[in-house]
Amino acid sequence: MHPFTATPGDSVAAWGEEKLIRAIRRWLGSASPRTPFGIGDDCAVLRRSAGPQLVTVDPVIFGRHFDAAVPPRAVGAKLLKRNLSDIAAMGGKPTAAVVALTLDATVSLRWLEFFYRGLAACALSHRVSLVGGDIAEAPGVLVASLTLLGEIAGKRFLTRTGGKIGDHIFVTGKLGNSLLSGHHYRFTPRLAEGTWLAGRPEVRAMMDVSDGLAKDLHALTPPGARPAIEAALLPRRGRIDLRATLADGEDYELVFIVAARANLAVLQRSWERKFPRTRLTRIGRLVSVEAAIGGGVDLSEYHGYEHLR
Amino acid sequence: MHPFTATPGDSVAAWGEEKLIRAIRRWLGSASPRTPFGIGDDCAVLRRSAGPQLVTVDPVIFGRHFDAAVPPRAVGAKLLKRNLSDIAAMGGKPTAAVVALTLDATVSLRWLEFFYRGLAACALSHRVSLVGGDIAEAPGVLVASLTLLGEIAGKRFLTRTGGKIGDHIFVTGKLGNSLLSGHHYRFTPRLAEGTWLAGRPEVRAMMDVSDGLAKDLHALTPPGARPAIEAALLPRRGRIDLRATLADGEDYELVFIVAARANLAVLQRSWERKFPRTRLTRIGRLVSVEAAIGGGVDLSEYHGYEHLR
Repeated sequence: MHPFTATPGDSVAAWGEEKLIRAIRRWLGSASPRTPFGIGDDCAVLRRSAGPQLVTVDPVIFGRHFDAAVPPRAVGAKLLKRNLSDIAAMGGKPTAAVVALTLDATVSLRWLEFFYRGLAACALSHRVSLVGGDIAEAPGVLVASLTLLGEIAGKRFLTRTGGKIGDHIFVTGKLGNSLLSGHHYRFTPRLAEGTWLAGRPEVRAMMDVSDGLAKDLHALTPPGARPAIEAALLPRRGRIDLRATLADGEDYELVFIVAARANLAVLQRSWERKFPRTRLTRIGRLVSVEAAIGGGVDLSEYHGYEHLR
Repeated sequence: MHPFTATPGDSVAAWGEEKLIRAIRRWLGSASPRTPFGIGDDCAVLRRSAGPQLVTVDPVIFGRHFDAAVPPRAVGAKLLKRNLSDIAAMGGKPTAAVVALTLDATVSLRWLEFFYRGLAACALSHRVSLVGGDIAEAPGVLVASLTLLGEIAGKRFLTRTGGKIGDHIFVTGKLGNSLLSGHHYRFTPRLAEGTWLAGRPEVRAMMDVSDGLAKDLHALTPPGARPAIEAALLPRRGRIDLRATLADGEDYELVFIVAARANLAVLQRSWERKFPRTRLTRIGRLVSVEAAIGGGVDLSEYHGYEHLR
């Protein structure tokens, strides 16, 4: 469904802001709690949380993260799932979200209804409260930006820092071909996996793969080290080449570092018991920058997705 | 300064995302704490807070909330101040923020540097940590959306609910003429005033005036009541007519409800001791919908700013 309409009576301009906000609250239904704990006041009010809090923000933009071929319900879900993937990458649990919508006055009400209903369904299934937001007009665009709050699910959270030379590099699921396969909006954020991994002491660092492994792996690599990846080990989504595997982006898988001395067989067996349907693959290790490249992949040749270029 | 540039070498596209993010961290300086408590990981991590948490989100959009005549530092400050005004309206204290930027590849690096430096200076002066964000490209636009977190400053927070028939309506500062006077970006958010008012038991409800008093007052009006405003009492910014006073929007003042039985002289005297430079005006009261309009203003004739119309 195309988000823009040529029929003025079908567009958001036919209703204006106030009527639209009332409709959005209806579309969100039980995913949006009542004021003063939700939409309808100057701020949303959240109950105190027990430990440290996680915050992340990611948008979906028409023409970039979705087009008319992606069902609007899936666009709403994708907006939340992109952020859930960031919470998963820390080993966290999502709690509440706010959505800032910037849209052209010709955006279709029908499209917007499906978008919010898809967002609400995804929020309910992950127990996320949609507590507030903002709507503003800008010509020619449709951008929704979601800020997601979360908390630590277990005793520990993982950051991108902590990998050491000699450590192993693992990845969940498969990589590449996200756009053509529809994975970019059909993916399931790895929340359960992230929480479980944060509870394993041998896991030292973690992140999600969103701009392609070749680009994202740098963030897990400590100074003086480089990732030595074996091309044959990389789990690929379909029959795709190495460039597509490493640089397509929007994988929304977890990549993480396991201590060199860890018992990999125990980790793998425990994983398979817990997540029998999700592949776990050791794809290489962190080596010293001085180490010979040997048969490994030279990641610098496969730069992942970069905005503004 | 115009935010878009025709010289490719001066635009954000000349640097690309990674270099730009490094520059933004530099521009933000000490307003942006280190990872894992700030920019640079999948999520920002915040320390636990003692009480309930406030959340609000508001954008600035080129062509709507600013144009080339507004200095870019002031645009950065305005982005934060719009949200600070929402925290003030609850009687809260700001803590941390994330910024989602959506921009055309021709946005000027110089403009963007001043924008972030202005945002950082404003954040430092209000002790707000800029803990994360996102940058994405979309043709023809420049939108920055900020999500602000806060906490309760005192023992109590105020919502829009709580006014009763017979109660008095007060407003801080002056209303109207915000665009022409430059008040729309030069205003000071009423944080100290909001906290103080939340500590006064006779204040029952509060909000900030952002879309014009005529529109916003509805939210403070309980069922069965209507606001009876006296035109002669309204504090005006300059020599403007009633429509401009009530409907211009972007006042960023506080409007609040005081219990009918309160001692107004005591409230006014205490206010003047605490905030000698900020005007406080009683502009009318909440009356029954059945009460005669008399000499009061019929607010329905002055609809404030509404998006998408």
